Amino acid sequence: MIHLKALGVLLREGGQPYPLDLLRTMLGQAGIRIHMLDDGRPPEPLDLVIAMGGDGTVLKALDMMPGCPVLAINFGTVGFLTAGGREELEQLLQRLIARQYIISERLLLRCDYPGGMAHVVNEIVLRSSWRLMNVEVSVNGGKIRNIRGDGMIVGTPTGSTGYLLSTGAPLVMPDVECFILDGLNEYNFTSRALILSPQSRIRLVVGPLLPDQTCNLYIDGNPICSVPAGQEIRLQRSDRRAQLLFFDEHYFFRNLSSRLGWEA
Amino acid sequence: MIHLKALGVLLREGGQPYPLDLLRTMLGQAGIRIHMLDDGRPPEPLDLVIAMGGDGTVLKALDMMPGCPVLAINFGTVGFLTAGGREELEQLLQRLIARQYIISERLLLRCDYPGGMAHVVNEIVLRSSWRLMNVEVSVNGGKIRNIRGDGMIVGTPTGSTGYLLSTGAPLVMPDVECFILDGLNEYNFTSRALILSPQSRIRLVVGPLLPDQTCNLYIDGNPICSVPAGQEIRLQRSDRRAQLLFFDEHYFFRNLSSRLGWEA
Amino acid sequence: MIHLKALGVLLREGGQPYPLDLLRTMLGQAGIRIHMLDDGRPPEPLDLVIAMGGDGTVLKALDMMPGCPVLAINFGTVGFLTAGGREELEQLLQRLIARQYIISERLLLRCDYPGGMAHVVNEIVLRSSWRLMNVEVSVNGGKIRNIRGDGMIVGTPTGSTGYLLSTGAPLVMPDVECFILDGLNEYNFTSRALILSPQSRIRLVVGPLLPDQTCNLYIDGNPICSVPAGQEIRLQRSDRRAQLLFFDEHYFFRNLSSRLGWEA
Amino acid sequence: MIHLKALGVLLREGGQPYPLDLLRTMLGQAGIRIHMLDDGRPPEPLDLVIAMGGDGTVLKALDMMPGCPVLAINFGTVGFLTAGGREELEQLLQRLIARQYIISERLLLRCDYPGGMAHVVNEIVLRSSWRLMNVEVSVNGGKIRNIRGDGMIVGTPTGSTGYLLSTGAPLVMPDVECFILDGLNEYNFTSRALILSPQSRIRLVVGPLLPDQTCNLYIDGNPICSVPAGQEIRLQRSDRRAQLLFFDEHYFFRNLSSRLGWEA
Repeated sequence: MIHLKALGVLLREGGQPYPLDLLRTMLGQAGIRIHMLDDGRPPEPLDLVIAMGGDGTVLKALDMMPGCPVLAINFGTVGFLTAGGREELEQLLQRLIARQYIISERLLLRCDYPGGMAHVVNEIVLRSSWRLMNVEVSVNGGKIRNIRGDGMIVGTPTGSTGYLLSTGAPLVMPDVECFILDGLNEYNFTSRALILSPQSRIRLVVGPLLPDQTCNLYIDGNPICSVPAGQEIRLQRSDRRAQLLFFDEHYFFRNLSSRLGWEA
Repeated sequence: MIHLKALGVLLREGGQPYPLDLLRTMLGQAGIRIHMLDDGRPPEPLDLVIAMGGDGTVLKALDMMPGCPVLAINFGTVGFLTAGGREELEQLLQRLIARQYIISERLLLRCDYPGGMAHVVNEIVLRSSWRLMNVEVSVNGGKIRNIRGDGMIVGTPTGSTGYLLSTGAPLVMPDVECFILDGLNEYNFTSRALILSPQSRIRLVVGPLLPDQTCNLYIDGNPICSVPAGQEIRLQRSDRRAQLLFFDEHYFFRNLSSRLGWEA
Repeated sequence: MIHLKALGVLLREGGQPYPLDLLRTMLGQAGIRIHMLDDGRPPEPLDLVIAMGGDGTVLKALDMMPGCPVLAINFGTVGFLTAGGREELEQLLQRLIARQYIISERLLLRCDYPGGMAHVVNEIVLRSSWRLMNVEVSVNGGKIRNIRGDGMIVGTPTGSTGYLLSTGAPLVMPDVECFILDGLNEYNFTSRALILSPQSRIRLVVGPLLPDQTCNLYIDGNPICSVPAGQEIRLQRSDRRAQLLFFDEHYFFRNLSSRLGWEA
Repeated sequence: MIHLKALGVLLREGGQPYPLDLLRTMLGQAGIRIHMLDDGRPPEPLDLVIAMGGDGTVLKALDMMPGCPVLAINFGTVGFLTAGGREELEQLLQRLIARQYIISERLLLRCDYPGGMAHVVNEIVLRSSWRLMNVEVSVNGGKIRNIRGDGMIVGTPTGSTGYLLSTGAPLVMPDVECFILDGLNEYNFTSRALILSPQSRIRLVVGPLLPDQTCNLYIDGNPICSVPAGQEIRLQRSDRRAQLLFFDEHYFFRNLSSRLGWEA
């Protein structure tokens, strides 16, 4: 359980009227100090961030305040990481104050790329600007595949309801310790998602590119850099973890049903 | 059968030494005039084009000389449209002169887009520069789907061994009269390829785009234009057909086996 | 249009109370004679069969009265071939009498198997009782694949919303002239649906079987016979067609949306 | 490392001439006693079983001698669990004696079914004798899906190269701690493999069956029993593990490449 004294609030950009008065009143009565994260770095360490938006806002909160637990309220469209919707806000805050929550710990990837390093919550994507490209994939020093297609993706269980869902990869329960690797529109018949052990050291080497072709790296939905032919990306388990708050033990499957009609 | 008097030759750009002497000698002895298409428009109507390259060269030949039959010799990497490889050239020319070929007639798509029109041999692709976009699909005046993903594709049976193969669409025998429609990395569970009747009038309307997002139209692998939100693409059967020459009745499945290991 | 004088009615077995009084009254007033098909062969040629049930009842009607058009009212669970639901019956009959319908002509397969022949509306399935088996597939005299898995399926466009939908095959508009071939749970990476031209002559040869293993043939959902190792099944276009009545030009996509949530 | 004193040998039934003389000579010189497991229970505890056959023989060895490590030599067709082929036998035995092996520990499933319990190495399958059936799936007390199709499958990472591979499920590295759940030929668009955490308690309840329909349970490829409508199957992590010997750190991907052409 978290000892809640100081709390940050991150709002989705370009947003809507947010019920900040309700938030201030309820949390203030519980003796919790509130800092709006749009105003810059908070003046004290935070015990929790409340992210109001969709999954993108959650990713941004995790990126801004590494190591800090996040409670996400859905004011967006995609909400697999959110604990509930805007219409439940009062009830969710009551349960937060009453400590009736569960903390879901999430594995992160560490991505070393040409010119930088990042901690990855959902996935990294290597994607050709257009036309086929090749990526050579090695795991623990052994070459395992040559992917030929629009690109490839490596993600976490958290990312299995993100872009990985579009590639046909499996749904992964959040507490499984693994990574998921898949191709994007491979030009062959042998594409198949691969579930990697969390100890895997993954190396991706970009193959030759055409003169008018670039290979771009995206992390958690954001463009990072282009990766020239012959350059490599290295991935392994991050020493960080993300912490997300939920109020329902079965939130993962409930979210799948309500957002994607999985139950059908 | 074709009455062969004048013949064009199209070479893959940036290519390799081509056996043009052999070509000139054999065809000259058969009384056939040869025109190199790299030198510009030929001075007389052509009865056939020999394309030396991969599938890209074939597409270019069909585009340059609409209505003219094409015999393709594989000097490239992908060769589903080619009748044989460079090492068989002499034998293929003998069979051409002896009229031992079959002509495969191929359905084309006509694509009307903002600012132009094109005849499509393989496929048209609408693709987001990055992130999810929506395309509303109507057939014969009725809305059938809203595709939400990286984009979408509509192709011909000829295109079923092109980019469509990467999207998981089925293989289609060349003489089936149909079109194929599929999504690209749809963010849902309901994606499924759709086989449309050749009389279908297809209308695609691009949904709202983010400020930094563009939707690009590609035809037969070439970038054509960006399509703004709200604009539409119209597709229907072209009044043109393509004609490809082959020497083996079972060329389609033989090519699948040899190039993609489909037989396995 | 059909000149409607005599009409058969087929009811789903084990069924529910059917509104036969309404049917008799409305059709009687229009001068149409009704024969219940449960009572055996009708005493005169029929101009139409009304099938009340699900897709299974439609298949049975087409089998009992070959060549006779069928109007199907959904009193079942799966209803891709039905023109409307039980709650719309009065309105559907009005439109039938007013000749406000369209007739959808459907391609059938002819299946020659050891010991018999059948006309196939949806699909034939070869399925192992348990464990892997092999089927060698030839088209027009050329071997195209060896399928290794639980079995295989060949179907019509009409069948694309039947069992073929479960194998991942594409949806096919009813007026496309083609057949669809796919494997069942193939034990390899090369499985891909294949769209065959309607002129295809397809030959399936069952490979070696284990001592306790049988390969069973099913046609339109009914068990037909077991097929011993080495025996063959031959498939080609039937000289018959099926005729189904609908009242809405867009019935195919409307049914997909309402029954499978394809629109999403 | 294993202290090797007594060793069992299990041969694939109906087999071929096995090089037992070589085995006896090499192991005898190393002071290891050999017991043929076809002759019944060995007279002393075993330190290792050498299984000569395919994956089926490995499963049988693990079932006969629970807790005992297995070294598998491929004398069969499918060999994802085998450390090498028959042609390498002498070299493999040398490396065994020299202790140059790695031990791969594998998670097992415990399956409680009506009338019994079993430890599962690869997978359990619930499969309809014919036609659609329903299975209700719950995880940790919460209902997550209703599967409607030919049946369903739950397997281990070891099983991901078994029957699960036929259902389109992902490949799973052997040391990932998870289970995999998937449908068999689901009659909808929402089928997607699910990766479950190893702590999951899974409950499967068979839905209503037709009069001529049975639902059969198979464990590791063997028929176990039929499961009546309304009955349940319970699955959770077994307290046992399997131990397999290999001589190459990259055996998993090497086997995929050589046996399924995954490398392509």
